Amino acid sequence: MSPETAEPRSAGYPQALLSPAELEARLQQIGRERYHSRHPFHRLLHGGRLNRGQVQAWVLNRYYYQSRIPLKDATLLSRCDDLALRREWRKRIEEHDGWPAADGRPANEGGIERWLVLAEAVGLDRDYVVSTEGLLPATRFAVEAYIRFVREKSLLEAVASSLTELFAPKIHEERIAGLLEHYPFANERTIAYFKRRLSEAPEDVKFGLAYVTREARTREQQEQVLAAVRFKTDVLWAQLDALHHAYVEPAQVPPGAFVPVGPQEWQGMGSGGG
Amino acid sequence: MSPETAEPRSAGYPQALLSPAELEARLQQIGRERYHSRHPFHRLLHGGRLNRGQVQAWVLNRYYYQSRIPLKDATLLSRCDDLALRREWRKRIEEHDGWPAADGRPANEGGIERWLVLAEAVGLDRDYVVSTEGLLPATRFAVEAYIRFVREKSLLEAVASSLTELFAPKIHEERIAGLLEHYPFANERTIAYFKRRLSEAPEDVKFGLAYVTREARTREQQEQVLAAVRFKTDVLWAQLDALHHAYVEPAQVPPGAFVPVGPQEWQGMGSGGG
Repeated sequence: MSPETAEPRSAGYPQALLSPAELEARLQQIGRERYHSRHPFHRLLHGGRLNRGQVQAWVLNRYYYQSRIPLKDATLLSRCDDLALRREWRKRIEEHDGWPAADGRPANEGGIERWLVLAEAVGLDRDYVVSTEGLLPATRFAVEAYIRFVREKSLLEAVASSLTELFAPKIHEERIAGLLEHYPFANERTIAYFKRRLSEAPEDVKFGLAYVTREARTREQQEQVLAAVRFKTDVLWAQLDALHHAYVEPAQVPPGAFVPVGPQEWQGMGSGGG
Repeated sequence: MSPETAEPRSAGYPQALLSPAELEARLQQIGRERYHSRHPFHRLLHGGRLNRGQVQAWVLNRYYYQSRIPLKDATLLSRCDDLALRREWRKRIEEHDGWPAADGRPANEGGIERWLVLAEAVGLDRDYVVSTEGLLPATRFAVEAYIRFVREKSLLEAVASSLTELFAPKIHEERIAGLLEHYPFANERTIAYFKRRLSEAPEDVKFGLAYVTREARTREQQEQVLAAVRFKTDVLWAQLDALHHAYVEPAQVPPGAFVPVGPQEWQGMGSGGG
């Protein structure tokens, strides 16, 4: 096709609107290039090559991310005057915070509680974890940047930043298999958080993907969507960089952050949370 | 008791901590002096002395308040790192936004939908109401001030500002009786919003009152609680002042705001929301 007859849209000109399939392909490409499943720390974790203190540091810092997700989602709710979107988005808060049994619906302890079960299983004190003392400052900064993004960017970008869930089921499957194979603390009860996310995340992301596909009506908005997902991969990656630096190599723990104590070999631990 | 032997707390010195009973008594006093049940517009409404356009204006403007309550409550959630408080507070969003039937729990259309049923019953177009076109600017300003208060003040003050619910059951009872007696649009279906609030509000306020009684640990904090409730009564009162000015006396509708059309007598309307 010569330049004269090229139809700008199909020719992929910078301003041409992407088709839904093209948009999703770009999102998947971001996942392949930037999702934290590629991070060396995760390879060590899933391969059974982290000692007790290193896993504790991961669980402790990741708790902060998990525990702030409902605040991030409430931030999105608080700026959303679309009742249907609010109803859908509220589910994310419910899944993390849980609910009591009521009106015939069984109780759900919630993802944060499930994470605390994991924390206790790896030998951390629940109150210490909840206090967020011992957190790496970089964890706090990354999570706060995510919440700020959701508060300050457009609603479209706020929704889009959740789309790293597109890539989550694969990492959860790897993690479940890797933890069960390599670590004595891992069993059905202690890794319930990841099991549950396997069924929740695809539902959430289906809604989010449909939303951004529908609401990004210009190429500029589509680029904002892609940038939001890249931003989010940065938020996730930065947390692992900080863990790796502090606890793996060069293993320089910043002042005030968690310092592992006691035996670091798994062999001496018994069945952990078993 | 002489000044020398007086115990500052029981003597009611400015800085003495109030007992729970004293704190609640002060709250009730604010209700008696400042709650919008005393406003002339409500007396006209409940006494059957408002015409069709005046009731429409009330329903239209009050919709904005109702519809922003979930955003206000999500704002509170978004700054609350206490999971137990979030779980409790989320109920308010659920009640207003509703939920679908799931896991054996029956659906709830939600308070906003119930309000829209009322809006249609008084002859308003649902889409026009939802668009918030025709709103009195003072309604918007008052509601925005409430949300800003919940975002910017302390969490204690944000919770406290909900405590006007202490006074709500009485006004809802008056309203239910008054509407049913005087207006052809009023029936079980169209006033379902108020009926439901009769059972919801006491549960909500019981939690809120226990929270502020427990968390206000200094007299200064107790005074902040009282000031928050006074602020909230201002938010409610200002909305009725604006309605009264625009639609009752002197009946000067601001530029761009809703202007009633058609017959204003109820007699010609039939049974309204039927």
